[in-house]
Amino acid sequence: MRLLRNFQEVTALFDALFPICRSITGDGLRRSLDILGEYIPLERVSFKTGERVLNWTIPQEWHIFRAFVKNSKGETVIDFSNSNLHVMGYSDAVDEIVSLEELKQHVYTSEKRPDAIPYITSYYRRQWGFCMSRNQLSALPEDRYHAFIDSTHADGQLDIGHVILPGNSEKEVLLSSYLCHPSMANNELSGPIVLVMLYQKILKWNKRNLTYRFVVNPETIGSIAYLSKYGEELKNNLFAGVVFTCLGKSNDPKCDLSFKMSRNESSEINKIMHHLKNQGQGIGIRKFSPLSGSDERQYCSPGFNLPVGQISSLLYGQYPEYHTSDDTKELMGIEALIENAERLEAIFMAIDADGYYINTHPYGEVKLGDYDLYPTTSCADCYCKVSNDSLQDARNLLNAVLMILSYSDGKHSLLDIANMLSVNILKLRGVVDLLLEKGLLEGPFYEEREL
Amino acid sequence: MRLLRNFQEVTALFDALFPICRSITGDGLRRSLDILGEYIPLERVSFKTGERVLNWTIPQEWHIFRAFVKNSKGETVIDFSNSNLHVMGYSDAVDEIVSLEELKQHVYTSEKRPDAIPYITSYYRRQWGFCMSRNQLSALPEDRYHAFIDSTHADGQLDIGHVILPGNSEKEVLLSSYLCHPSMANNELSGPIVLVMLYQKILKWNKRNLTYRFVVNPETIGSIAYLSKYGEELKNNLFAGVVFTCLGKSNDPKCDLSFKMSRNESSEINKIMHHLKNQGQGIGIRKFSPLSGSDERQYCSPGFNLPVGQISSLLYGQYPEYHTSDDTKELMGIEALIENAERLEAIFMAIDADGYYINTHPYGEVKLGDYDLYPTTSCADCYCKVSNDSLQDARNLLNAVLMILSYSDGKHSLLDIANMLSVNILKLRGVVDLLLEKGLLEGPFYEEREL
Amino acid sequence: MRLLRNFQEVTALFDALFPICRSITGDGLRRSLDILGEYIPLERVSFKTGERVLNWTIPQEWHIFRAFVKNSKGETVIDFSNSNLHVMGYSDAVDEIVSLEELKQHVYTSEKRPDAIPYITSYYRRQWGFCMSRNQLSALPEDRYHAFIDSTHADGQLDIGHVILPGNSEKEVLLSSYLCHPSMANNELSGPIVLVMLYQKILKWNKRNLTYRFVVNPETIGSIAYLSKYGEELKNNLFAGVVFTCLGKSNDPKCDLSFKMSRNESSEINKIMHHLKNQGQGIGIRKFSPLSGSDERQYCSPGFNLPVGQISSLLYGQYPEYHTSDDTKELMGIEALIENAERLEAIFMAIDADGYYINTHPYGEVKLGDYDLYPTTSCADCYCKVSNDSLQDARNLLNAVLMILSYSDGKHSLLDIANMLSVNILKLRGVVDLLLEKGLLEGPFYEEREL
Repeated sequence: MRLLRNFQEVTALFDALFPICRSITGDGLRRSLDILGEYIPLERVSFKTGERVLNWTIPQEWHIFRAFVKNSKGETVIDFSNSNLHVMGYSDAVDEIVSLEELKQHVYTSEKRPDAIPYITSYYRRQWGFCMSRNQLSALPEDRYHAFIDSTHADGQLDIGHVILPGNSEKEVLLSSYLCHPSMANNELSGPIVLVMLYQKILKWNKRNLTYRFVVNPETIGSIAYLSKYGEELKNNLFAGVVFTCLGKSNDPKCDLSFKMSRNESSEINKIMHHLKNQGQGIGIRKFSPLSGSDERQYCSPGFNLPVGQISSLLYGQYPEYHTSDDTKELMGIEALIENAERLEAIFMAIDADGYYINTHPYGEVKLGDYDLYPTTSCADCYCKVSNDSLQDARNLLNAVLMILSYSDGKHSLLDIANMLSVNILKLRGVVDLLLEKGLLEGPFYEEREL
Repeated sequence: MRLLRNFQEVTALFDALFPICRSITGDGLRRSLDILGEYIPLERVSFKTGERVLNWTIPQEWHIFRAFVKNSKGETVIDFSNSNLHVMGYSDAVDEIVSLEELKQHVYTSEKRPDAIPYITSYYRRQWGFCMSRNQLSALPEDRYHAFIDSTHADGQLDIGHVILPGNSEKEVLLSSYLCHPSMANNELSGPIVLVMLYQKILKWNKRNLTYRFVVNPETIGSIAYLSKYGEELKNNLFAGVVFTCLGKSNDPKCDLSFKMSRNESSEINKIMHHLKNQGQGIGIRKFSPLSGSDERQYCSPGFNLPVGQISSLLYGQYPEYHTSDDTKELMGIEALIENAERLEAIFMAIDADGYYINTHPYGEVKLGDYDLYPTTSCADCYCKVSNDSLQDARNLLNAVLMILSYSDGKHSLLDIANMLSVNILKLRGVVDLLLEKGLLEGPFYEEREL
Repeated sequence: MRLLRNFQEVTALFDALFPICRSITGDGLRRSLDILGEYIPLERVSFKTGERVLNWTIPQEWHIFRAFVKNSKGETVIDFSNSNLHVMGYSDAVDEIVSLEELKQHVYTSEKRPDAIPYITSYYRRQWGFCMSRNQLSALPEDRYHAFIDSTHADGQLDIGHVILPGNSEKEVLLSSYLCHPSMANNELSGPIVLVMLYQKILKWNKRNLTYRFVVNPETIGSIAYLSKYGEELKNNLFAGVVFTCLGKSNDPKCDLSFKMSRNESSEINKIMHHLKNQGQGIGIRKFSPLSGSDERQYCSPGFNLPVGQISSLLYGQYPEYHTSDDTKELMGIEALIENAERLEAIFMAIDADGYYINTHPYGEVKLGDYDLYPTTSCADCYCKVSNDSLQDARNLLNAVLMILSYSDGKHSLLDIANMLSVNILKLRGVVDLLLEKGLLEGPFYEEREL
């Protein structure tokens, strides 16, 4: 397995993926999944063209070989080989001589970025189209133009990559990102690359309470297809999930990361993210909305209503380069991916610590002295002999021990207890491990239970 | 059926009803119900004197023929034929010569309105009494007065009028008002007249999701009797109800209407009224209280606890003319009745639109393009081809479609969705109808349900 | 039974108890219980040394006969007969000649009160130790000292006193205080003395809806032992409970009493105390915490989770004399005990009034006139003939009657109704009794129920 340990290694992966002309199906997607497969052992899940998946149908594969627009002198005005954004995604083939006015009916530009090529698709209505900069289009003279696109639509399949990293519980955490846009950086490659980095980090943990599922799919139709096969399984097992999108360099000085809540407002992932925000982790919170977003719209569709949110740092629609050829590696920043992967690892550690623990001696206080957890003399200055670097001092540890034992009653999660103590849940992991080791706690469990 | 379409027609009904000497039983009540019956096909429900209704007993009928007070010179001091407020409601007969002091024991005046005749009753303790202006009483000299009331109490019945306008569901909306006061306008005739206007409006709707029940009864004892017969039926079927009282010209510049909540705080009618208030419909909200009010006190008694509130514009007890001969047509205003009937029609339209709808394709997003509800090209400027005048633009319609489909899960009512969108529920009626027509929604249902 | 009616009688009890050298076991505790037994008919519950109680074990009894430290000239430096605080609680015997440095290893002083003897114990780790003032210790010269403690540890028992005062319901109120510290006033004797005064007050009530249980035990190990025997019974029957601690003269000008909530946040005792606070009864509220406190930590341990709070006026840890020889009768104040007993009686009266009452005629309003509870003429100035001194006037009584009847539906407690009326629950006791007497109410019940 190739590793992603530093700037150079991450850059190498990015540079391998960037030039490929991806779409929601086809060779570009498969080549991209192959490259990712060198870093994460993705298994392939495929759906055949015409297969019914929930309310949708798997489309034909789109193949594109060559495309250009030339003027009457034979000069090339647009050349697909310069940028794979020049052709509208899923464009029909064309080989026609057209007037400037006819050409304009088939050319898309960006109003906000007049120098950039916009990214346009027409997956479900057949038409042909080119994309170019607004300024270039404005400069075109009246003429007869040769519009040429050599593309085909053919039966084939839709491909998804996924892998499961088992933990102590069958309860799962989903990490999902998408792979279906051509050469763009923040809104395409940042998500799957950070997802792969998270795989390599979580793989190294000493202990995983939860099982981790990593999914890379073409957006929307991919998650719909995935849910048609694995939706019931996820409904039974999913504890928390996050869709990764647009994880480039944030332009918000107050927040490194921005979390869109799951549709189910009382989901544990929503509570954890609010907790981490309140603990000063630089996380902004957005409400759930079905009106825009990424695959969380599918995971959170009302029939599934999974506890899946979405995380981003340089959010789609909130930067002017979005969906244009200006969404580049420089804009995104390789360092941002490395930093975000670290921040996200801490978030998944928090998720992994959470759950309901049970005090095994809930009647009366535990006699802590018998477990070497309490001072033997009633002296106000010498509370506790066990030290723990993640807590300020011994009194804090004793407080944490007493709070955890008092509230580990099957009705309060570790997150609830962290909120009561106003302490980051990550700081309680060591105390919980100590109490598990001494037999004073059992767990974690993932549903409320009686003592 | 006579119609109430304009100022003249409403005035004609008012003028026919005003002079009648009504009480909680008797000919005045029956004549009034007959007149209303020309405008709304009321069926009569009657209860015999002595019949036990819940914790109460139907009283005897009261008949009054003639009444006066004369001084020793034979000059008339009080004449019942001048105003039916001059005799205390349910007064015993009397034919006595009394001193001024003795007379004063039986005369009621209004402290706050010294020139007006107050409205006084003594339904359940037999006594005789007159009402007159305080100024007139003060001017009476020492003398021997002839107090004469020709009235009888006799076994008979208590009469109520009601009618049901069926809708698609057996779930009902109750519109209730009272008819039992003699010649007063705002606090007597405004309620039943507006109720009849609502009947004529709701009758004309193209579609009624709910069934509408209209009730006109003598206050308190009438609704108690009605509940003794129909209370269980209402408990099973009632979705929302409103008691109409005091619907004359508001003196509150901020609110046209004022709604007293039902006792059950989480009732849908309470939520709808809060919603309409928040949507700027000029509705004030009062808390429920059993301490004063109208028939909602009976509908909301703890054994029934029906979802019935009360609506008013010129509230009892908050205008000085209340319960006196100064409560006139001019004070009330015929135009106010016409305007309030229009406002109330919109409220009942909102109620009729509400309920739980179910997305018939809840797994994954619906592929809106297949239903001609989505743009076929991913162009930010051309979202949706369906237009709808009640929404600002196509994007608003698409948002409404997505929100309604996402949250029509059997746990969120259309009202909840309107609140999420911060849009008046009335604006969603058209979208819901479109989605029902395309088979994407089912409903409305009136209880939470699983998808 | 000796009575506690005035300053002299309370002082006599205090003076009898103060000099005794109490600990968590032994003769001092038993003598103290005997003295209390003259004022309250405590039954004795005993647990043998070595008996396992929940997660703890009953310790040996500690007996101490004589103790001193002398210098090389034979002069007495510390003499146990001067203050029983001079020897660490549960100290081992010793008879050694030691250097000043060795002595200091076994001497405890108070940093904050350099002139006072601190109170120190070592129940569960065997060692020997003295306590003295920091200033006296500092003045000791280098010398050889004779450290002498004549104490023994021997199998015996742990003793608790309790008594039950029956009421109409088997549902119970617990009053619990502790008895285990040597000669200190506020943080030792204030609790049990006030508890005994409450016993004598509640005994005299005309009516007790609830049953009252009084417990006096050595702190922590005593309540743990008690719970090991009676915990399940309390779990079934307890409606509310209060631990009494530190009930001396408050130094908070705004609050006479301070209540620490029970761990179960929605317990009725918590709600009542918030209510009384909001009604201006000078009660401060503290959140529950397992981190410090008294026996409520055991009653509220998660397996029991009893509705037990703790009440104090001069709180442990918030006055500098705490746990030293400066915690004297003068600091505490006998008058404070007398005043607090009166305040607490009102609190228990409020608890005793609470519960769910049921309107026996819940369908429609009750016809109050038939029960002499309503005016017979509709005159705004003569609402009600029944008067009640605890309410401002007749209208207030009528309001209370209407509110109680409207909301006595098995879902709203009398406390809920008092909160709706914004009136002290104690003012509703008389109205409830009137309605019970007229057969219009049943109750109180202690669980929600259907009408």
